[in-house]
Order: sequence, then structure tokens, then C-alpha cells
Amino acid sequence: MSAPREVGRLRERASVRREDLDAVLDAALVGTLSTVVDGEPWVVPLLYARDGDRIILHGSTGAGALRHVAAGAPAALSVVHLDAVVVAHNTFDTSMNYRSAVVYGTLRPITDAAAKRAALTLVSEAVLPGREAEVEPMTSKQLAATGVTEMAIREGEWVVKSRTGGPGEPDVPTDAWTGVVPLRTVADEPVAEARSAGQAVPASVRERVRRGASAV
Amino acid sequence: MSAPREVGRLRERASVRREDLDAVLDAALVGTLSTVVDGEPWVVPLLYARDGDRIILHGSTGAGALRHVAAGAPAALSVVHLDAVVVAHNTFDTSMNYRSAVVYGTLRPITDAAAKRAALTLVSEAVLPGREAEVEPMTSKQLAATGVTEMAIREGEWVVKSRTGGPGEPDVPTDAWTGVVPLRTVADEPVAEARSAGQAVPASVRERVRRGASAV
Repeated sequence: MSAPREVGRLRERASVRREDLDAVLDAALVGTLSTVVDGEPWVVPLLYARDGDRIILHGSTGAGALRHVAAGAPAALSVVHLDAVVVAHNTFDTSMNYRSAVVYGTLRPITDAAAKRAALTLVSEAVLPGREAEVEPMTSKQLAATGVTEMAIREGEWVVKSRTGGPGEPDVPTDAWTGVVPLRTVADEPVAEARSAGQAVPASVRERVRRGASAV
Repeated sequence: MSAPREVGRLRERASVRREDLDAVLDAALVGTLSTVVDGEPWVVPLLYARDGDRIILHGSTGAGALRHVAAGAPAALSVVHLDAVVVAHNTFDTSMNYRSAVVYGTLRPITDAAAKRAALTLVSEAVLPGREAEVEPMTSKQLAATGVTEMAIREGEWVVKSRTGGPGEPDVPTDAWTGVVPLRTVADEPVAEARSAGQAVPASVRERVRRGASAV
């Protein structure tokens, strides 16, 4: 659960490598967006996609998520993947393997129709890769009804932490079993609506099954 | 991705039932804690356990997570479970099935040694049910080195949202495949450290495998 000993500290580490940030962000579809409203935290889970040095946030329904958030609001997008329960010889050294990222920045609504359409395509491709080519394009009305916000990824304005490996050597003689219980998110076989029963599962859906809950 | 149409709205809903909040919280081990530091959001993923009307937050290492957070700081704990990608006949109606909770409150460090020990037991039991009975008790030194914070669950100070079901009937004639891709988090078989190879896997670890990434 905690690991203030040296061996624990070495296994739990922050990274300043940008590729590590990208890998954590790209391994998820949904993050937790936190901002500040009237001095208090305000939080909502959102679909997102990373596009180079920016994060595109899908605004959900018109009445929804980001109506509280003004342009320029300070915000943080947080993502965490649980990889294992790390079973030590005592509860003190028991821990989790994980990969987490928090990106700090400011929110900017995307209002230009072409930029909005391009941004939504990136979110759509993260959720169902290749789906846009399989279906009718989004109408102007649908585009207008969808909120899209972006946040730049700025140098030094993010935190990536992870823990990997086993529990380390016990500090006292013990017969306790030690090891790890790996955790992972999987996609099951697609379930067709009644109207699509017997129809071939499209490539976009097969690709989503292959990727599980990862954007890439 | 968004669903401002009536059918979509019906499928995506908020709940005011306390048992729905408890179910979402109890189905996870890790949440995202957001607070405000100097007017900006400050965010960290943390192990937690729900105990009736309070949430117990595990403070990670001494140098770590909650050192930024003063007693009485306004905070929010957020949890989200992804249950499926909902594949509609267009990208606009494509969506996710999920269960999410955000609990708003204030943080209070637990300093009394007995209360701290009891709170840590609850987190330990959430992570590895029955583990405390299998290993040596936490020492006073270990207890002192571990930070524990609690947040009361107050009526009206939380938000639970979920979406279930399929994409709904298309609003235009279409041949597009529609359905869902179920997602779930699973635990794989435990992997023993070399020193524990051949040893029987303890009941706590078998129970963790059975529960996957759920606290209960």
C-alpha cells in the first residue's frame, strides 16, 4: 500500500520522458478532467484523444460536461491504468503496479467548424479506428450540437508516474507468499443489435476488440 | 460520441440513489483525487476504500501524494468504469457505456493511531481481502510512515452517472452494423516471486483474482 523504503522508492518512479507521457495517454479512451469552479474542484470523466502536443476533449451532450468550464480555465486531465496488485510479505509493502499521467493546462473550446470536424474525427478514430469511412459523415447540425475543447501539452506541465515489478525482498524472514496479480482490461466479442444480427462485424469494430480499451 | 437526441438522453442518466453511488465506488480500488492548490487543480490517483459514509484515502509514500493537501481542503474523488463501446450507425451517436461517480467533500487527515490502523485495515482488505490475517501486523513505525486521509460522503454532494444498453434505433435508414463491444477488467493468474515458487497461493490472493479489479 505504501513503500517509503528505498527498494519501494526505486520501483515507483516519475518520468520526464515525453514518450512515456504519450504512451500512458494513448493507452486510454477516457480521462478525468478536473477544473476549478468558485474555488472548488469540479470533475468530469471525458472521452479524449491525443493529437501531437494537444489533447482533444469530447464535450458530451449540449447540456453536459463542459458548460461549467470557461475558455482559459485552468484544468488537469488525469489518466490511470492499473496493471497489478503487488503482494508483499506484509500489508505495509503491498502496493499496486500502475501507469498514471496528469496533464496540467488551460482549456480552449474549438469553435471553427473545420477544426472541430477534424478534432472530432480524431476522437472518433481513437474510439473506433476506421469507423468514419464506414458510415455517413457527420452532418453540420450534429457538428454544431457537439462540444469540443482542446488543451495544449506544455513542457514541464505534466506528471507521469508508474510502478512496475514485484514486491522486492522482504526485510524480515518470512514464509508469506509474495508475487503479483496482473490486471488488464479486455474487450469481449461484439454484441450486435437485433437489426444487425448476422451482418458481418465491420473492420472498425474488430479493431476495437483487438485493442481492448486502448486508443492505439 | 454524444447523444443529444431523446433516445440518447434516456440511456445516459444520473442517479440520486445512494446504493448506486456505493456500487460504483465499491467496484474500484483506485480513484482520482482532485483538489485546488493556489487556485489551480491538483490531481493524484489514490488507493481508497469506502467505509459506510466515508471514503478512506491511502496517502502513498511520505514524500508523496497528499503533502500538498491541507486539512479541510475542498476535494473531489472521481471513479469511472468503462463497460462498453456503443457502436451506432454514425459517429455522432457512437458512445460509451460507463458508470462514474464524483464525490465532493473536504479532506481530513486521520492522525489517531488506532483510528489510522483501523482505516488502513479497510484499505488493505479492499486490496487483498483477508490478507491481514495471513501476515504479521503492521508495526508502529510502518503505521507512522503511512498517511491516511478521510472524506465524508455528504447527502447531495455527489454525482453518479451511467450509460447502459445499445445505440438505439437509427434515425435514418442504414445498413451500418450497430451493437456494443463489452469491456471489462480482469485479473490473470497470480505470478509468484522466485522465493515463493511452488508455495500455495494464499486465500487473499485467490480472492483478489476472483474479484478482478473490484474492491468487493
